[in-house]
Amino acid sequence: MNGFIAVHCGAGFHSDSLRKDYQKTCYTACRRASETLSRGGNAVDAVENAIIELENSPLTNAGYGSNLSWDGLVECDASIMNGQTLHFGACGAVSNVWNPITLAKQLCVKQCESLSLGRVPPCILTGQGAKTWAERMGLQIVDDQKMVSSKAFRNYKHCKRKLKRYSVQNDLKFSPLDTVGAICVDSYGVVASGASSGGVSLKHEGRVGQAASFGSGVWAEMSRDGTKPSIAACTSGCGEHLIRTQLAKNSAESLQESSPTLGLDRCLKEKFLESPFLWDIPERLGGSLALTFNPQIGEGELLWGHTTRTMCIGYMSTEIAKPKCIISYLPPKVQAGHKAVVSGVPFKVSMQPIPVLQWEVTTETNLNGSL
Amino acid sequence: MNGFIAVHCGAGFHSDSLRKDYQKTCYTACRRASETLSRGGNAVDAVENAIIELENSPLTNAGYGSNLSWDGLVECDASIMNGQTLHFGACGAVSNVWNPITLAKQLCVKQCESLSLGRVPPCILTGQGAKTWAERMGLQIVDDQKMVSSKAFRNYKHCKRKLKRYSVQNDLKFSPLDTVGAICVDSYGVVASGASSGGVSLKHEGRVGQAASFGSGVWAEMSRDGTKPSIAACTSGCGEHLIRTQLAKNSAESLQESSPTLGLDRCLKEKFLESPFLWDIPERLGGSLALTFNPQIGEGELLWGHTTRTMCIGYMSTEIAKPKCIISYLPPKVQAGHKAVVSGVPFKVSMQPIPVLQWEVTTETNLNGSL
Repeated sequence: MNGFIAVHCGAGFHSDSLRKDYQKTCYTACRRASETLSRGGNAVDAVENAIIELENSPLTNAGYGSNLSWDGLVECDASIMNGQTLHFGACGAVSNVWNPITLAKQLCVKQCESLSLGRVPPCILTGQGAKTWAERMGLQIVDDQKMVSSKAFRNYKHCKRKLKRYSVQNDLKFSPLDTVGAICVDSYGVVASGASSGGVSLKHEGRVGQAASFGSGVWAEMSRDGTKPSIAACTSGCGEHLIRTQLAKNSAESLQESSPTLGLDRCLKEKFLESPFLWDIPERLGGSLALTFNPQIGEGELLWGHTTRTMCIGYMSTEIAKPKCIISYLPPKVQAGHKAVVSGVPFKVSMQPIPVLQWEVTTETNLNGSL
Repeated sequence: MNGFIAVHCGAGFHSDSLRKDYQKTCYTACRRASETLSRGGNAVDAVENAIIELENSPLTNAGYGSNLSWDGLVECDASIMNGQTLHFGACGAVSNVWNPITLAKQLCVKQCESLSLGRVPPCILTGQGAKTWAERMGLQIVDDQKMVSSKAFRNYKHCKRKLKRYSVQNDLKFSPLDTVGAICVDSYGVVASGASSGGVSLKHEGRVGQAASFGSGVWAEMSRDGTKPSIAACTSGCGEHLIRTQLAKNSAESLQESSPTLGLDRCLKEKFLESPFLWDIPERLGGSLALTFNPQIGEGELLWGHTTRTMCIGYMSTEIAKPKCIISYLPPKVQAGHKAVVSGVPFKVSMQPIPVLQWEVTTETNLNGSL
C-alpha cells in the first residue's frame, strides 16, 4: 500500500549537539512506517510502527527513556485515533508496558467489539488496570528498571538536587517536552494519528497528560462526503495546557480553511497563544504536526507549527526512497511561548479503491448455501 | 451569597419503586448547595457540596455505593470546572477516596499554583497516584469495603451470575448509568459544573470515563465580554460515547443559540443521536443538564435533555425555600437511545458586584509597613 507519513519527536528545545541524533530517530521512524505500508499495513498500523521506533529510542520522552516521575518511575501516556472509524484508544500513567502505543492501538481496535451484558469496551485505561489489560493482550511487559534509560536517571537526580537548592520557579530545560507523534494517510485515504509521552519530569504519580486525552493529543477525521478534506494532527508541549486548549482537534480542524497554512497559524494564535483557557500561563509552549488530504485527487499538505524554540519532524511518501528530517526553529529574536512559526510542504499519494469486503462475505454466504 | 443550583442523579432508568428516593436525594443535594452559598461559598463550593451529598447516597452510582468493577472494587471518576478561571480538575479510576468530587475540586483549585522548576500542577490524576495526592491533601480515605454498598454488591453478584449464563449482548438494566452532576451560578455570576461517577458495572480496572475527561463530563464558561451568556453543563450516560461526542462542551455551547431549548434539542440530535462518532452504536444513551445565564440582567434558563428512558433532576434558587425535584420521561412510545426530550425553566439570581480584593491586599501591605 502507498501512503504518506509524518512524525515528530517533540516541540521543545533540541540542543545542537543532539540535532543529528533527533533527525536520525525521525528518519528511522519514517522508514519503519513506510515499510509497514509497503507490507500492506494501513494508516493505523503505520502510525503505531513509527511510534514504536520513537518509543524505543532513549532520546525521546516516550516509552523507554521517558522522564521519571516524582517517585522515579516511568509512567506513560499514549493514544491513537483512526480517522475512518473515528475510534480512539488511550492509556494513561501506565508502567511496565514496553510499547504504550501498541496498548493504545489495541484499545482503539477493540472499540468495535461488543461485550456481554451490554458492557462497552473501554477507550481509556490507566495505571495498574492498563498494565493488566496489556498483559492479557500478550503485549511485552518489562520490569520498572528496564524502562529507565541512564540519561533519564541522570536527569532525574539532577532535577531532585536542583529542587533542594531552589524552591522558586525555574526554567523549563530540565523538563524536556519531547512527546512524540505520527500522522499518516494511506492509499485507501484512511488517516490516523498517534501520540506517546512520558509526561513532564518529576510529575505526580498517576498524572495523565494530553497524550491520553481525547481531542488534545491526537485527531483524525477522514473525509466522509467529499465536501471537506481528511484531516489529522498530533501535538506536543505542556500536557495540561494542551488539554485545556484541545489543540489536536482545533489544529486539525483549522486546516479545513481555504489556506491550511493561514488556518494553522490563526489556530495557534487564537486558540493557543491568545486562548482564554491559558490566561494565567505566562509561556504557552506547544506544537502541532498536521495534515490535510483530498482523497479525490490524492493530494495533500503537511504542516507544522510551534511556539517552542524548536520542533523536530520527519516525513516521507512511500513513493520516495528517503525521508526528509528537519529541525524547525522559531526566529532567533522571538521569545518561546509568545509567537508561533508555521511551515508546510505539499504531498501526493497514488490512491487505490478500498476493497469491497461485502462482496467476499456474500460469496462465502453463497458457498455455505444459506442464501 | 445568592445563587441557583441544579443537580441530577443520572440519565438512565429510574424505577417507579425508587422514584421518591431519587427525588429526595436530589432535594437534599440542592439544600446542601444552597446552604453552602448562604454561608458565603461560591459556585464551585456549592457544586462540590451538592455532589458530596449525591456521592454519600447509596442510591447513586458515585462515591459510596458505586457500581463495582470486574474485580469487585469501587473505582471513581470525578471532575469540576470553574467557569471563571476556566480551570479543570479531575480524578479517574480512584479507589478509597470517600468523596472523589473533593479531590477533583482540590486539583482544580491547585491549578493556580506555581511549582518549582517550572513544573505544572496536574489537572488529571488517576489510580493509586490520585489516592496518594488525596491523602496528602488530608481528604478522607477509607478501606475498599467501606465504599461498597450492599445494593452494589448484590448487583455485582447478580451480573457475574448472568455472565456465566449468557455470553451474548444483553440489555443495559444491569449497568445503571446514574452518574451524578451539578451546575451552579452564584450572585457574582460565576458558573461551575461538576460530575461524579462510579462508571459502568463490571468495568475493567483503570477504566476512565467521561466524568474525568475534559469537555465530556462537565463544562463551565463565564460570560467574559457580555456578548455571550455564561454557560454550564454536566452529562450522564455511557462514558465512552460521551467522550467521543464531548457532550458537556457541545451541549453547553448549544445554549448560546437564540433559543436555548432549540439549541439543546439540535445538539442532542446532531451531535449525539446523529453524531458520526457514534455510527457504530445502536443505542445512543445520554443526557445533559445545562444552564445559560445573563449576568447583566441576572436571568437565566435551566435545561435538561436526554435520550435515556428517564432523568432525575432537582433545582432551586437560594431565594426560594424549597428545591423542585422531578423525573423527566421520554414519551412512552419513543425508544430509548433514538430520540431526545428537552425541557427547561427560567430562573433569576439577585446579582452582587464582585468584591475588589486588591484593595484589601493593599491595606494589609500598608499595615505591615512594607509600602
